[in-house]
Amino acid sequence: MSQPGAGMAADIAEQPAGYARLIQPSSAVAIGRIAEVIAARRPRHVVFTARGTSDHAALYGAYLTEIRLGLPAGLASPSTVTVFGARPDLSQALVVGVSQSGGSPDLAEVLRVARSSGALTLAITNAPSSPLTEVAELSIDVVAGTERAVAATKTYTAELLALLMLVEGIRAGGGTLPRQEQAALAALPELAAQVLTDPTARTLAPRYRFAARLVTTGRGYAYPTAREAALKLMETSYLPALAFSGADLLHGPLAMADPDVPVLAVVGSGPGGASMREVLAKLGERRADVVVVGPSDVAGVAARIAMPQVDERYATLLDILPLQQLALALALARGEDPDAPRGLNKITTTL
Amino acid sequence: MSQPGAGMAADIAEQPAGYARLIQPSSAVAIGRIAEVIAARRPRHVVFTARGTSDHAALYGAYLTEIRLGLPAGLASPSTVTVFGARPDLSQALVVGVSQSGGSPDLAEVLRVARSSGALTLAITNAPSSPLTEVAELSIDVVAGTERAVAATKTYTAELLALLMLVEGIRAGGGTLPRQEQAALAALPELAAQVLTDPTARTLAPRYRFAARLVTTGRGYAYPTAREAALKLMETSYLPALAFSGADLLHGPLAMADPDVPVLAVVGSGPGGASMREVLAKLGERRADVVVVGPSDVAGVAARIAMPQVDERYATLLDILPLQQLALALALARGEDPDAPRGLNKITTTL
Repeated sequence: MSQPGAGMAADIAEQPAGYARLIQPSSAVAIGRIAEVIAARRPRHVVFTARGTSDHAALYGAYLTEIRLGLPAGLASPSTVTVFGARPDLSQALVVGVSQSGGSPDLAEVLRVARSSGALTLAITNAPSSPLTEVAELSIDVVAGTERAVAATKTYTAELLALLMLVEGIRAGGGTLPRQEQAALAALPELAAQVLTDPTARTLAPRYRFAARLVTTGRGYAYPTAREAALKLMETSYLPALAFSGADLLHGPLAMADPDVPVLAVVGSGPGGASMREVLAKLGERRADVVVVGPSDVAGVAARIAMPQVDERYATLLDILPLQQLALALALARGEDPDAPRGLNKITTTL
Repeated sequence: MSQPGAGMAADIAEQPAGYARLIQPSSAVAIGRIAEVIAARRPRHVVFTARGTSDHAALYGAYLTEIRLGLPAGLASPSTVTVFGARPDLSQALVVGVSQSGGSPDLAEVLRVARSSGALTLAITNAPSSPLTEVAELSIDVVAGTERAVAATKTYTAELLALLMLVEGIRAGGGTLPRQEQAALAALPELAAQVLTDPTARTLAPRYRFAARLVTTGRGYAYPTAREAALKLMETSYLPALAFSGADLLHGPLAMADPDVPVLAVVGSGPGGASMREVLAKLGERRADVVVVGPSDVAGVAARIAMPQVDERYATLLDILPLQQLALALALARGEDPDAPRGLNKITTTL
């Protein structure tokens, strides 16, 4: 038996190498070719379908699609197709299934139905010969290698990067990415490695040892990070973690924020981060215990996990790293084994 | 000063009358005309935009659209447009803003941008002369009357019914609804009144007096109910309530379900409810404390809030009623005033 959490720690540590692998020509060229096919087919809208952690990668993909491609994007609930027999006309859509295992039968069914209605279908998985890739017309292998822990970490960030490379590839018409984009991608592995050496997130774990709940928040590209951090904390530490977009937090659930409720706020350096200022001010008024993840100092917060200054599109690929470390450290502090959480399956088998 | 919770209690009690008002010809004909315009324009997909409680009504609208109309539907995040300046091409879309106040500037902005890109736009509000209705080409007034409490109840169910009537109207091509549908609609007010007289939900409140967290779950048409019940419990009782679709619950967060975590499961009598059986079995294995909301007996659960046997499309309009009563009773048991929760604003003003 290995040490509890050794698998998750190894998975987390591999992420810089995973980024490096995916931007190498062997993968980048394959993703570029897929982008070219999609650009040529000119879909009118994009539908993502995914579950769990991959759903948060899909959410990132939806933001990228709307903001960078100007195409409407949405996340489909598989149950309308698999449980209620819906047969939506997806003939003008690109339908993207995101799944680390590619083994969820409901996602494969959604792609099969979409393809039969004329949709262009794409599977993004860490399993090149899986039911999802078999049913899809196109597929991208995120080449993350075998994940040791049940809680997904390196497959999540590999999905994020594959989606970013794909969307920027479609934006570039399938040809070479603009030089600036190439440079930003090339810098990622080193930035990720640097972020992972910062001990701040791990040292924060004892603060949450006895927390009964936690709130995570972010806007835009940071919202998938808030959602994924909450899921990771729930899966590994059984800490009820509620994720809200900054705007929704102001709407109602702010009532729950008081000095006893820890808040993790992901605050980037672009428009998403700027739009969080009002949220942070309101949290301050309520004297909430706020820890910020981001590149800029924020007055009055309990602590900050410092992040490099990058475009918010890229921040999604970095901000989650210390939060994975926090989830791991907190699980260990609580005496849990995050490599084998109770009740967690690697593959969803629900239809 | 009125008694704490008197406003929310009155709002909840008015819902059968609200249903009766909306199905009267004065409203039904207006909704039918809107349905006719939409059916004639033949949108290729539908995008909903909303926040908070109305987001759950929009989710119901998205399920209806996919299942009943065979049109792809999704929920748009306003921030891509308002914060990141996305300008998606929505020329083939119907874009629906759902908001009780119609006053959220971000939703109005999303509809304005959508309309300028050629989308057919519709506002569904309880405020016929609001910024949202002014910016939209079409609008539906849900005629719920002034809501007394800050936590939305009767405006939510009025939005649900308006969406159901709209979608069935589009399905019927804008003409008269099929007789069977008319009969089901006509039966709603009486069914709602009957459900509200059942004391079970209120008597369950003391069980959750000291709960530190709660999980809600449902699939398909019951998932919006799970989401809205969780939000209502958070807004009024500050109880951290985590909503999961049944499939997602199996995926990861089931780890959190143990005898100490109460679970509210919404289990209908159709395909959605049938697909919850595996979830209930797994919850049983973990000896979770499960209360079921639904028409059928479920073995081994702690309690059941009995509901009438109706099509799951209609169950969404009934299942939330006892859960609103539970939220109200629990807030009062915890010494809170659900009419004026701390930190809760009636209108989101975030851009």
